[in-house]
Amino acid sequence: MRGFRSRAEVADVLRLLQERVKPLPAIPLDPAFVYSLVLAERVASPRDVPAFDRAAMDGYAVRGEDTFGASEYSPLPLHVIGTSMPGAGFGAAVGPGEAVKIMTGAPMPEGADAVLMAEDAPDGRAVAAVPPGKNVSKRAEDVRAGEALFEPGRVLRPQDVGLLVAAGVETVHVRRTPAVDIIVTGRELLPPGGVPREHIIADANGPMLCALVARDRGEYVEHPIVRDDAADLRHVLEQCEGDAILISGGSSVGEEDIVPQVVRQLGELPVHGIAMRPSSPAGVGFIGGRPVFLLPGNPVSCLCAYDFFAGPTIRALGGRSRDWPYRRVELPLAQKLTSEAGRVDYARVRVVDGKVEPLMVSGAGILSSTTRADGFVIVARDLEGIDAGSRVTVHLYD
Amino acid sequence: MRGFRSRAEVADVLRLLQERVKPLPAIPLDPAFVYSLVLAERVASPRDVPAFDRAAMDGYAVRGEDTFGASEYSPLPLHVIGTSMPGAGFGAAVGPGEAVKIMTGAPMPEGADAVLMAEDAPDGRAVAAVPPGKNVSKRAEDVRAGEALFEPGRVLRPQDVGLLVAAGVETVHVRRTPAVDIIVTGRELLPPGGVPREHIIADANGPMLCALVARDRGEYVEHPIVRDDAADLRHVLEQCEGDAILISGGSSVGEEDIVPQVVRQLGELPVHGIAMRPSSPAGVGFIGGRPVFLLPGNPVSCLCAYDFFAGPTIRALGGRSRDWPYRRVELPLAQKLTSEAGRVDYARVRVVDGKVEPLMVSGAGILSSTTRADGFVIVARDLEGIDAGSRVTVHLYD
Repeated sequence: MRGFRSRAEVADVLRLLQERVKPLPAIPLDPAFVYSLVLAERVASPRDVPAFDRAAMDGYAVRGEDTFGASEYSPLPLHVIGTSMPGAGFGAAVGPGEAVKIMTGAPMPEGADAVLMAEDAPDGRAVAAVPPGKNVSKRAEDVRAGEALFEPGRVLRPQDVGLLVAAGVETVHVRRTPAVDIIVTGRELLPPGGVPREHIIADANGPMLCALVARDRGEYVEHPIVRDDAADLRHVLEQCEGDAILISGGSSVGEEDIVPQVVRQLGELPVHGIAMRPSSPAGVGFIGGRPVFLLPGNPVSCLCAYDFFAGPTIRALGGRSRDWPYRRVELPLAQKLTSEAGRVDYARVRVVDGKVEPLMVSGAGILSSTTRADGFVIVARDLEGIDAGSRVTVHLYD
Repeated sequence: MRGFRSRAEVADVLRLLQERVKPLPAIPLDPAFVYSLVLAERVASPRDVPAFDRAAMDGYAVRGEDTFGASEYSPLPLHVIGTSMPGAGFGAAVGPGEAVKIMTGAPMPEGADAVLMAEDAPDGRAVAAVPPGKNVSKRAEDVRAGEALFEPGRVLRPQDVGLLVAAGVETVHVRRTPAVDIIVTGRELLPPGGVPREHIIADANGPMLCALVARDRGEYVEHPIVRDDAADLRHVLEQCEGDAILISGGSSVGEEDIVPQVVRQLGELPVHGIAMRPSSPAGVGFIGGRPVFLLPGNPVSCLCAYDFFAGPTIRALGGRSRDWPYRRVELPLAQKLTSEAGRVDYARVRVVDGKVEPLMVSGAGILSSTTRADGFVIVARDLEGIDAGSRVTVHLYD
């Protein structure tokens, strides 16, 4: 057993991950299924939307000028020569004094340039005039063929999906969803379905990590619990086919901490030990080009190390922002927030009456500190705490 | 064909939905699978977390007082009598002058009250003193048996999942995820996989509604396109088994608008026609107690009517807030926002240099207005527009 010789700086670890991990390749998808995915290309419309002039109202397609002068007092009889239905249209042209009954969305018949609303022809006679162009959706008024719809990097909205489909885009290239292998180690952990014994405890980190990966729009693959045996861990790591690997527990330098040595054997471990609290035993390695995150077994450390290093990386793999996924507010501190210079602190806080109250907790094992907290404040490495009254940025968990 | 006789007020429609639609019943789930769901009960911890005193560091379990006086200059030899491993522990007690090698998370042996860190005993001799209680996670320091963990209505976080599992909660009652039937009507619409013909257009609303329902944490069920035939629509409605029904298109009062009449036949349609723009032909009905939303076929109207009425209802069914799901900012208007008194307006806007610029678009058919916009401003029914410079609330799409 020995301590960490030296600890990496948080900023250096983030820089390493930024340099080494790039977005995954794009995959082609039917636009109906791209909601919330990240666009990997510029998309232009292959056609005009709408592709033809169409009625924007139910009523009568007419030549607008024919209705000039029509009013309640001087109703104008309409000479209706047919009907234009959505999807069908009316085969012939509308001549002077003629009208075609038309439904919203139906193609405008040739010759007509306006739609007299149904309300303005209650008994088949026009009681109002309608100027040319009125109540008509002109071809290409929404989008012109060739016009750019979206730029790369866009996180696609529900209406974007609608527009891509309406424009007849057949295939959209979006970033592939990252697959993330989750490995939990610890001989004290109860396997799923197992019967609790005296010192055998439930694994909280696996389910928590699954939720975090889902939040960051990754797909997780859970592996069986590794019981602190190097050969077992090596075997599980060799089964991993995802784009990133999370390993919970066994990341420290104790006798049971076989994770660092196995990761070094199969790849590299440039970071082991980080100047932060909690999560100082965390590590970052690479196996076959894929990032591997060594997350301490203590649940708060696990959450914190995930959020600092794994979360941004998984989001970046999917083409998303590495930025914190939490809403931020800036508020004054109700009390002094104590910290130690030389390490980054992850301080859980509550927001009470518009002021930030640090939760007085010690130990990385107090998971309830993160459920009672409204969020957290990051204390920069050079600070020896932050004075009461200072404004701090709170990252809100909800 | 006739116009709407009278239009319901937006506020009245929302009140009706609030009165008639309540959260779905709770279902029991394994806590590992409750991330992002809504808690339907108060949950208390069935046990202490941790359930026993355990080491918070790798090192040596000792009686703290034995180490008093140990220092670099006066190292204290440790009489190591065994090892305590996670999940196992050490069977005997630690007596005066004795030590047990211990790993983080391992049970503290009887008699020991502190953990001397491995770093402080580099060659098996203590070079620092450790006070009693140091580096020990005390039983129940995280959560006490019987302590309340979460209150009803909580949207469960990743760490909540971890804590529920750690506390040994076996079953959690959460709100059931609402199932939403999506029905698209329109004889002009191309069925999936169909070949486009002259006036046959792609259905943009179906995929957009699927995305919206997914955003609001519902599960959607898509039905085949109804080709504006009453018997066909009735048949599809009879197949619906979800908790809410969305019907796109055919909601107006034209000859093709068979939706209102069929909904009235199968249930009731208290709202048809709403004083808003766009979406004025929208409607709200009930069939067998389930809310039915008549969404206009024009895509912006469809989006707007969904967001005003269907979205809040689907979220409420799932136990979530009916409030807008968009982030809000308050900013000054760059130009006057024109509107008409007597109806609620949904004005698409861009935010440029901290100012709100209304998008100059007419017509509910311009879906690209909602993809080019950063968000929207709701203009209250009594306003005749809002002056330049006034501060308005922008709901941001992203």
